[in-house]
Amino acid sequence: MDDRKQAVAQVSDAVKAIREHRPLVHNITNYVAMNSSANALLALGASPIMAHASEELAELSELVQALVINIGTLSASWIAAMKLAARSAGDKGVPVVLDPVGAGASRIRTRTALELLEETPVAVLRGNAGEVKSLAGENARSRGVDSFEASADAIEAGTLLAERYGCIVSVSGPDDYIISSEGALVKLSNGDAMMPRVTTLGCAASAITGAALAVTPEPRDAAAVGMALTGIAGEIAAEHAAGPGTLQVRFLDELYALTDTTIAERLRWEAA
Amino acid sequence: MDDRKQAVAQVSDAVKAIREHRPLVHNITNYVAMNSSANALLALGASPIMAHASEELAELSELVQALVINIGTLSASWIAAMKLAARSAGDKGVPVVLDPVGAGASRIRTRTALELLEETPVAVLRGNAGEVKSLAGENARSRGVDSFEASADAIEAGTLLAERYGCIVSVSGPDDYIISSEGALVKLSNGDAMMPRVTTLGCAASAITGAALAVTPEPRDAAAVGMALTGIAGEIAAEHAAGPGTLQVRFLDELYALTDTTIAERLRWEAA
Amino acid sequence: MDDRKQAVAQVSDAVKAIREHRPLVHNITNYVAMNSSANALLALGASPIMAHASEELAELSELVQALVINIGTLSASWIAAMKLAARSAGDKGVPVVLDPVGAGASRIRTRTALELLEETPVAVLRGNAGEVKSLAGENARSRGVDSFEASADAIEAGTLLAERYGCIVSVSGPDDYIISSEGALVKLSNGDAMMPRVTTLGCAASAITGAALAVTPEPRDAAAVGMALTGIAGEIAAEHAAGPGTLQVRFLDELYALTDTTIAERLRWEAA
Repeated sequence: MDDRKQAVAQVSDAVKAIREHRPLVHNITNYVAMNSSANALLALGASPIMAHASEELAELSELVQALVINIGTLSASWIAAMKLAARSAGDKGVPVVLDPVGAGASRIRTRTALELLEETPVAVLRGNAGEVKSLAGENARSRGVDSFEASADAIEAGTLLAERYGCIVSVSGPDDYIISSEGALVKLSNGDAMMPRVTTLGCAASAITGAALAVTPEPRDAAAVGMALTGIAGEIAAEHAAGPGTLQVRFLDELYALTDTTIAERLRWEAA
Repeated sequence: MDDRKQAVAQVSDAVKAIREHRPLVHNITNYVAMNSSANALLALGASPIMAHASEELAELSELVQALVINIGTLSASWIAAMKLAARSAGDKGVPVVLDPVGAGASRIRTRTALELLEETPVAVLRGNAGEVKSLAGENARSRGVDSFEASADAIEAGTLLAERYGCIVSVSGPDDYIISSEGALVKLSNGDAMMPRVTTLGCAASAITGAALAVTPEPRDAAAVGMALTGIAGEIAAEHAAGPGTLQVRFLDELYALTDTTIAERLRWEAA
Repeated sequence: MDDRKQAVAQVSDAVKAIREHRPLVHNITNYVAMNSSANALLALGASPIMAHASEELAELSELVQALVINIGTLSASWIAAMKLAARSAGDKGVPVVLDPVGAGASRIRTRTALELLEETPVAVLRGNAGEVKSLAGENARSRGVDSFEASADAIEAGTLLAERYGCIVSVSGPDDYIISSEGALVKLSNGDAMMPRVTTLGCAASAITGAALAVTPEPRDAAAVGMALTGIAGEIAAEHAAGPGTLQVRFLDELYALTDTTIAERLRWEAA
């Protein structure tokens, strides 16, 4: 119970800090998620910048408080930009979130995610179970943006990746797990079954994790805050939604409206 | 009347099959439609993947059940990807939908659509009257995404294209026509006058046609299913919408909520 | 008071002309704003085309009534397309709006905006205070899409740019200023504090300014019309919105529903 109280305080403090400091979050994300990720960050109180030109990445790394890389619609020139941006971020001490969308669905996606993990300092790897298992070399049935795997089944793979790359692994699903090299640390269970019927809510979770990283010193805490905020806003939105169209819109309204009381009442958090 | 009953059953069966099998639909579409097409597919029960990197197109053709190509914001490298993906799809027996957005507005759009029709196996060509007439060599007044032409005026052009390229042609407008080399087969009349005030609903119709193709053996049937679902969801959404913003959101809710009863009550289908 | 009456008539006349003539507005805009700008133009009654392929830009300049260039997610090949399109527009007498998103945040953004102003005939430069000050060489604290600066503080910079490049400068903020080489001409004060929490509403203002330019002979008038329509639709949307998600949707509904009465009641316009 005391642990949960501490978690509630952490989530509330992060929201407060994001609204107060409006961290600038640099996103190199996929075309599908550009608008929705920018809107999720703005609704929460952060400030997004979307940029992928090699000429400006080093400059931007001096300006921003977090970098979110999402490989959902990659191509050769974008992969180069992702690597350059992640290296610049590393040089400047800017924390990096990596969302390996579709790892396992094609070799170039798996390879790009692994190269980013190997060559650049990723603080939080945030994906679904299929993606995480694929990156650990397990034979996952990834179908692009979807995953058939239960998130709990990815704990072993996540632990291996956390150890190998010195990062925190945040696996989403009906339950979300925050995983370090010592195994699963936290299980979060907010959310709604309708959420996977809206595109890019997982990408929004990664963007929100980036905003949390900008104001929360420990990646493991930021990763939990990111999934908590996404899950709570998503489940309230779903309660008021006749379908996924309305859910997507209300999700932004709920991120905007989040209060300490809502967080305290809603957070489904337990030590794993 | 019996024909309409059969059409109702076909549309209902397709929705049931999409929700049960969740076909993976690969989209190489324009930047404007990326998010809305992915959301339309998810709302209906299908699973979208957006990908255009040459390195992964052959692999993805082994994974997906349909390919939707939309030339709305084309450029040289995307055209190459479209051709490669369509050829891989042909090799693997994956059915292809082509949406020739803006054919007639510029030579490169007309030429790209014609080259895809000539060089790759397109199952369904899905566009508006201006686009279809332009591709048949008629002097249509295309204005990019809009068309000034009545869909009925494109039946001759559609029939010529269906014969020349061995495909089904699906022309949208206040009335939609499904056309084979023998002429118009079916006229569908669902929809609402506010729908053209929302961008990418035509692109959504093409994506939904792709999902229908994945579960419906005959392209002519899949093409009709695609327009029926788009028209029915769109007209219910419009009845509840104060304007095009709300229509866009409700369109997804209605795709999600579609029932056999709604389809049976609403479908405006007649043999042409 | 008579001046305001004239302004009301001008805004109403522009809306009427856009709905009647449905001007085709060519947008080379950023990935985040593609869908929302197209939807804003359609909701208002204009017709959008998004295109950036070098092969089609000259042709399109013969077809369109305005060009809107927005550098929000630029890269080398897009910069080349922007310049080519702006030059073709100039040759054909098509008026150009430039939205210098993120000028000041990186050298390539500042330089690209300046090169477009120098090399091509921009009718209206439409940005926030930080961007305008950066382009005038002032040391603005631009943070990508955001600005910390009050719009009134950019009047001097705007006047300098208007003189140097022979354009009208439209600066957005809680108050919007329309600036010529003689200084601020008009102050518009519609809008709502929640609007900056929705991404790409500034980009929508630029797109709407493009539609206004297509039907309004004087750039200074078109620039005021663009900000008036954006501000009025935005403030009504905000009155009905629980948060930025709903605001974004209702913004389109309100553009669609705008009447002469609403404009006459709402317009907050004064000579500056």
